[in-house]
Amino acid sequence: MRATVMFGAGNVRIENVPDAHLIEPTDAVITVTRACICGSDLWPYKAMEPSNTGRVMGHEAIGIVDAVGADIRTVKVGDLVVMPFAFSDGTCAFCHEGLHTSCVHGGFFGNADIVGAQAEAVRIPQADGTLFVLLVGKDDALMPSLLTLSDVMGTGHHAAVVAKVGPGKSVAVVGDGAVGLCGVIAARRLGAEQIIILGRHPDRITLAKEFGATDVVSERGDEAVERVRDLTGGFGVHSVLECVGTEQAMLTAISIARPGGAVGRVGVPQDETMPASLPAFFHNITVGGGPAPVRAYIEELLPDVLEGRIEPGRVFDRVVDLDEVSDGYRAMNEREAIKVMIKP
Amino acid sequence: MRATVMFGAGNVRIENVPDAHLIEPTDAVITVTRACICGSDLWPYKAMEPSNTGRVMGHEAIGIVDAVGADIRTVKVGDLVVMPFAFSDGTCAFCHEGLHTSCVHGGFFGNADIVGAQAEAVRIPQADGTLFVLLVGKDDALMPSLLTLSDVMGTGHHAAVVAKVGPGKSVAVVGDGAVGLCGVIAARRLGAEQIIILGRHPDRITLAKEFGATDVVSERGDEAVERVRDLTGGFGVHSVLECVGTEQAMLTAISIARPGGAVGRVGVPQDETMPASLPAFFHNITVGGGPAPVRAYIEELLPDVLEGRIEPGRVFDRVVDLDEVSDGYRAMNEREAIKVMIKP
Repeated sequence: MRATVMFGAGNVRIENVPDAHLIEPTDAVITVTRACICGSDLWPYKAMEPSNTGRVMGHEAIGIVDAVGADIRTVKVGDLVVMPFAFSDGTCAFCHEGLHTSCVHGGFFGNADIVGAQAEAVRIPQADGTLFVLLVGKDDALMPSLLTLSDVMGTGHHAAVVAKVGPGKSVAVVGDGAVGLCGVIAARRLGAEQIIILGRHPDRITLAKEFGATDVVSERGDEAVERVRDLTGGFGVHSVLECVGTEQAMLTAISIARPGGAVGRVGVPQDETMPASLPAFFHNITVGGGPAPVRAYIEELLPDVLEGRIEPGRVFDRVVDLDEVSDGYRAMNEREAIKVMIKP
Repeated sequence: MRATVMFGAGNVRIENVPDAHLIEPTDAVITVTRACICGSDLWPYKAMEPSNTGRVMGHEAIGIVDAVGADIRTVKVGDLVVMPFAFSDGTCAFCHEGLHTSCVHGGFFGNADIVGAQAEAVRIPQADGTLFVLLVGKDDALMPSLLTLSDVMGTGHHAAVVAKVGPGKSVAVVGDGAVGLCGVIAARRLGAEQIIILGRHPDRITLAKEFGATDVVSERGDEAVERVRDLTGGFGVHSVLECVGTEQAMLTAISIARPGGAVGRVGVPQDETMPASLPAFFHNITVGGGPAPVRAYIEELLPDVLEGRIEPGRVFDRVVDLDEVSDGYRAMNEREAIKVMIKP
């Protein structure tokens, strides 16, 4: 089958790889009908060491179940399913607590061990726990928004939950990528009164405003901090959604949080240490977050997607087929596209 | 009046300083009947640059109100009061939210700006908001425990609250100083099922067990992490109370937290950055805490002290007068005493 393989920084190609097939009795195989490129895929795209074998990319997909292992009970061949970016058994202590990304039998797609989903098909470990069956047609117009439930919408929601967004709260979203934009949707959905987006790309800012952002801060560093303080009576915001992952983004996030506030971070950290430990301490600011348990959130978010109350699928502003995936990476990396959908 | 002045590392002396007196109409002056030495006083005791003027130390006290400013309404001359380590107006947005340590008119005692309480008397700014009137006699046997409401008991409680301790939870307390020991009390009081104290001083460990610790881990670093995991089915604890403030303590705290767990830190951080940002992220561990709003907690903790359900005053294992304060610092610094009470 054909799949997207990264061989090193800037080197993404479509290759023929062994067909996805059942290995464990708890596996399923799905034919991928929609996949996409994630902002986190750009980290290896910028920095991956050259590799002869490469790595099949992708951790977000919708597909049709093509085969199921002997132990599978809840999904069947022909089901349309959404695949969260982490697989999970759905039965362990952490899954029961809603933290599927820490499942004791779980793991992540698109790395050295588990083949990714930017491909014609993908093997799904722990398929009973992992896959969520969608009761819509596979060409449904809602498909882009449904696809975001595999990662970005659930991730933006996680940032908002961890940052304790609620009715009447002031919120800042650091980062105007697809996750940040979904964070704006999530903040509005959870009742935030003021939503400040920190970003500087006109197309993204426009979308952020349509999603519910009330204020835009395009400055960076100290100037951004000052602007947010100006917009919040000098105190900063109750909730910060950190959707980038760099040291600078975390420094900004802590600096714009109100004393007693919370930072929900979902941008994959690029550093071993966290900055601004002292201001976070002296202002009693809580920092939490991590890989979003999107599997836990699908049930909550799905009705709003199906009924059109939220439209996270609008973050996709380019669609490619497998042959065009390499250009899709380039376009996202150069900020030419917000998020690229793949129709294999 | 006589007061404890630190002139540099290891150099604490009793000096004659100007009498405490009213400056603002919102001030009170109290005659100090009990004060104490805090673990955080040991940081300057170890590292303070030499100073000719010195710094009047101390931020914990019980005393009798001696004078009140023209605007004072809720405390009167003769009242027995406990003084939280931070002063606060009791009326600003942060005080209303229970975060008195971020009061817009607030501040801390015992620094370059505000004279400390290891003295015969101390000026209390924002006295109406700051002081809590105690309805007991000044020689009451409960005095040691009441004194802990000015800092250590409220601080241990804060760590437990931020670490989300609750019924049935597993808890680890990093640090066996007075705050850590009060953290054990707080964890038990909030219903924790398992309370692991990390420490190695026999006298403190004994007290921790009497306060409710169920397990003791005396190893350090990786060995301590392994031991805590062994004690918790391999997963780590739901809640960690970080009561030290060093990089190593925070690294341990994050390493022993269960995925989805929370670290409440109250040890004053000694570093600009926080370690273990990546494991905290990948395990969705929340880190919060800071200067405890002890003023907010007095009302909740006081009945348990008055009725003897908790006995945090047992952390005091030495009593000195002002002439002996220097030796009190030495004893605490050399771990000869857990916490030293001062009777001026």
